[in-house]
Amino acid sequence: MKNRSALDAYSNGEAWWNTSISSIKKNEIIIRGYPIEELIGNLSYSQMLYFLLCGEILSDQKAKLFESVLVAGADHGPRAPSIAAGRMAATCGISFNSAVATGINLLGDIHGGAAEKGMKLFYQTNAIVKEDKQQSLSQVVKDQLDLLEEKKEKLPGIGHQLHDDDPRVRKLYQLSQNLVEEGEISGEYLRIAEAFRGQLEQRKQKKMTMNIDGVSAAVQCELGIPAEAAKGVFALSRGMGIVAHAFEELNNGVLIKGPCPNTEELVQYTGPSIRHIEKESELQS
Amino acid sequence: MKNRSALDAYSNGEAWWNTSISSIKKNEIIIRGYPIEELIGNLSYSQMLYFLLCGEILSDQKAKLFESVLVAGADHGPRAPSIAAGRMAATCGISFNSAVATGINLLGDIHGGAAEKGMKLFYQTNAIVKEDKQQSLSQVVKDQLDLLEEKKEKLPGIGHQLHDDDPRVRKLYQLSQNLVEEGEISGEYLRIAEAFRGQLEQRKQKKMTMNIDGVSAAVQCELGIPAEAAKGVFALSRGMGIVAHAFEELNNGVLIKGPCPNTEELVQYTGPSIRHIEKESELQS
Amino acid sequence: MKNRSALDAYSNGEAWWNTSISSIKKNEIIIRGYPIEELIGNLSYSQMLYFLLCGEILSDQKAKLFESVLVAGADHGPRAPSIAAGRMAATCGISFNSAVATGINLLGDIHGGAAEKGMKLFYQTNAIVKEDKQQSLSQVVKDQLDLLEEKKEKLPGIGHQLHDDDPRVRKLYQLSQNLVEEGEISGEYLRIAEAFRGQLEQRKQKKMTMNIDGVSAAVQCELGIPAEAAKGVFALSRGMGIVAHAFEELNNGVLIKGPCPNTEELVQYTGPSIRHIEKESELQS
Amino acid sequence: MKNRSALDAYSNGEAWWNTSISSIKKNEIIIRGYPIEELIGNLSYSQMLYFLLCGEILSDQKAKLFESVLVAGADHGPRAPSIAAGRMAATCGISFNSAVATGINLLGDIHGGAAEKGMKLFYQTNAIVKEDKQQSLSQVVKDQLDLLEEKKEKLPGIGHQLHDDDPRVRKLYQLSQNLVEEGEISGEYLRIAEAFRGQLEQRKQKKMTMNIDGVSAAVQCELGIPAEAAKGVFALSRGMGIVAHAFEELNNGVLIKGPCPNTEELVQYTGPSIRHIEKESELQS
Repeated sequence: MKNRSALDAYSNGEAWWNTSISSIKKNEIIIRGYPIEELIGNLSYSQMLYFLLCGEILSDQKAKLFESVLVAGADHGPRAPSIAAGRMAATCGISFNSAVATGINLLGDIHGGAAEKGMKLFYQTNAIVKEDKQQSLSQVVKDQLDLLEEKKEKLPGIGHQLHDDDPRVRKLYQLSQNLVEEGEISGEYLRIAEAFRGQLEQRKQKKMTMNIDGVSAAVQCELGIPAEAAKGVFALSRGMGIVAHAFEELNNGVLIKGPCPNTEELVQYTGPSIRHIEKESELQS
Repeated sequence: MKNRSALDAYSNGEAWWNTSISSIKKNEIIIRGYPIEELIGNLSYSQMLYFLLCGEILSDQKAKLFESVLVAGADHGPRAPSIAAGRMAATCGISFNSAVATGINLLGDIHGGAAEKGMKLFYQTNAIVKEDKQQSLSQVVKDQLDLLEEKKEKLPGIGHQLHDDDPRVRKLYQLSQNLVEEGEISGEYLRIAEAFRGQLEQRKQKKMTMNIDGVSAAVQCELGIPAEAAKGVFALSRGMGIVAHAFEELNNGVLIKGPCPNTEELVQYTGPSIRHIEKESELQS
Repeated sequence: MKNRSALDAYSNGEAWWNTSISSIKKNEIIIRGYPIEELIGNLSYSQMLYFLLCGEILSDQKAKLFESVLVAGADHGPRAPSIAAGRMAATCGISFNSAVATGINLLGDIHGGAAEKGMKLFYQTNAIVKEDKQQSLSQVVKDQLDLLEEKKEKLPGIGHQLHDDDPRVRKLYQLSQNLVEEGEISGEYLRIAEAFRGQLEQRKQKKMTMNIDGVSAAVQCELGIPAEAAKGVFALSRGMGIVAHAFEELNNGVLIKGPCPNTEELVQYTGPSIRHIEKESELQS
Repeated sequence: MKNRSALDAYSNGEAWWNTSISSIKKNEIIIRGYPIEELIGNLSYSQMLYFLLCGEILSDQKAKLFESVLVAGADHGPRAPSIAAGRMAATCGISFNSAVATGINLLGDIHGGAAEKGMKLFYQTNAIVKEDKQQSLSQVVKDQLDLLEEKKEKLPGIGHQLHDDDPRVRKLYQLSQNLVEEGEISGEYLRIAEAFRGQLEQRKQKKMTMNIDGVSAAVQCELGIPAEAAKGVFALSRGMGIVAHAFEELNNGVLIKGPCPNTEELVQYTGPSIRHIEKESELQS
């Protein structure tokens, strides 16, 4: 990022809204050079998303791998905050797209966002290895883990509060390995991710498993997706589940649905006991 | 919708969060009965979305048609409010998913939402025709147009502020017709949509063209997508463009980008001329 | 609303962004004519909000009544969907303002939005009474109730799923009555609201109590707030509670907080039993 | 933050939703111990917000100073991204509260969020001075500026793309000084803020002016508002302007309003020239 001012750019002769993505004229919609009617029916969802974002058309096999990442993250049930918020929103009388936006608004650094952190780490690790041929991957991973420890940060993409052998991780891993064997993707980021997991396991002296964010990060690096866009990609993945759950709740016909019943063990007031404003006059302005 | 209270349902023995969509247990994620690892790599994005939403797995051909609808609506350039809002959001220092949610939050009744209205009209028209075999489609369409006129409402899905021969409409129409000919879809909703357009043209005595919302509505009716979910589906379609445009703007590095430059012809104050609070004491409480 | 196109207005010589609210120039910020430095320290929050929205400076007494409405709606505990969504959002790693926006996004027609419907009804009722001196208020209210019954709509502002003698309603009523007695407000909308409640009680032959939306609607009509802005006003009222609750949750340090624990009685899967995709080949495209 | 799991806390016997803010029972709403009917009519907006957030009732004078901060940030015209997004949202057919949420969603780290960064810096600076009596304020400020330089970060709260003598800053400063003189607030954070500004001016050898974020940060520190809540507080301040502008646009009746007209100097496509998918078969899966 260059931290520029839009007014400066404009006074330098740039248009206010510059885009290399699309050109819209009367009866003509051009996406990165192609008339849209040549893309409709030819590009799959994941190809179109990648094309809009990165400017290249993924091969069918890569596009299917990308699609697998999107399908894998689509739902994690009504206890996921994104899904629950979307369902509650659907009972409050707002536009249905706004219920979907509500759920997506929650998919931040902590809820799905670990993929972005993983991708940054993996891209950076690979860049160091590529630049300095003297250093082994193992050494660079060790240095990065030391750095994380020093900053008291967790290695992204490892561990899950519920799963320790997540079926999504296994399947995405297997699908990726198939493409490595076919030479469609290099496999270097899968190796980097595995190197981090393995070294952490050794350090901690206990089993460490990759989570869905970790394997999604490695796969998206293989495909060249920019890390900074990862939370947007996940929005369109989990977005499917949010749409379905919000619609199910809307269809139930419950109104103003709260998060849970009002029992003592679920909702408790822990503040000061009842008290009164003794001298009201003091408060009056 | 039944307009029930969640507390009533709960005291009747229902769980607070009932869902027929997904079951999440340790190392087991079930989507409408299927283990998720059997869906990843097997279902395309549009199949997964439809399966989550409607509970059935679309045939490949229908899934491609649905995908075409999603691809067609993906982008309409930086002047579309959804895209512009997403781009501006990306310059304001919020989580990237929140920039995407910002754009999606705008896709309401007026910005993309005409598809929902169209679907409701087409489903209703078909239901009347199916129920009362005496009435011709032409007659039911006439009645519905009369009703819209009476309520001073516009026929949804007709006309566009920019396009009068939208390349997306032409292409989606052609792809749908192919599937009608192959017997994959019935074509009844395409005929209904065309009947509305044709009769309106006769009434108005001028050329009326279907817009992207209109043809998307007809195609989604062919596929059995519920009208009330249409704005959610469009959120995932236009969501692709929002992700790409927000990322492009983020990458530009402009900070706090407003909608336009500050020239007089673009931004004008039309309120009272400068004035002063004469008796400050009057205002003081 | 005139349903105009922005491009038409612009080609007619209007600026793209016309506003009578504010003028921003170098070192000069004018709000509806007044330099902002004359408003800071002189206008209370509710005066500023009203001034921005309606263009007039409320008297101190009216401003206090408006403030009372804002204070009354500020919080309804963590089971309110708006509050719960804001709290969950605060645990997901997004920008704090986005957690607040999440909660506010839920305050639609059903969750707080009844005030808007009430205001429209009360304004319309008063307009009819004012226009046609022949008709008594009682008669107009009767007609309006008949109309609601015919449309199978509920009278807005009556009844609450928890309270039947809401302390907020009693207090707001009392504060308003004080201003009626002092001649600060006319009291006509309070009388209209009471007429509706009373006639409904007679029709239903059971006690009917006004809820917070109902009394807030009547008071806001007394102050001249436009009905269409009511959900925005409530956003700034409940917004206080959302800010406080989201901050409390943020401070707790819980991560990715779902709506409730994962017990069977709270979360239940009601979909198809486990099944398998038998012929994977059929799914492969 | 403790980074705990909600499930762990729950299995330790804590309620799922613990709050010291409010208790909601039938016909009883308690806010931090006080029945809500004792707060309505007694607490101003800024007192209620502070009470909900911090648990104490601000004195009238402090509450007015807090209110001044809220009033000062209320609007910065239709070119502010938050205001523009809210106005555009109002033309798209969504619930009015969602238009307000759209604007608030943009008030992140870069758009209004500098106050939070300033508050953290000022609180930290004061803590160091208080803890280590040996060090002068001047020395601690110097160290902090060195640290910022080292991390290549800007000093928050300084400079503005438009104003270099912002009338809001002058007025807030003056109102705060009044309260310092009256002994209502200590003034220590105002001195810290000024120390930072002054030393930066010396380093840069050019005039440096405090912006609205800087002075708001100092004042909010004087009042004891937690830094992490600052973006929420600003949401309620700028929220006033968003409500008013969104309503003005809604009232205009323009539909689907984009950010600017479609002239070449405002909107430009800079991507690849038109091209065609030559071998469609390659794309077909």
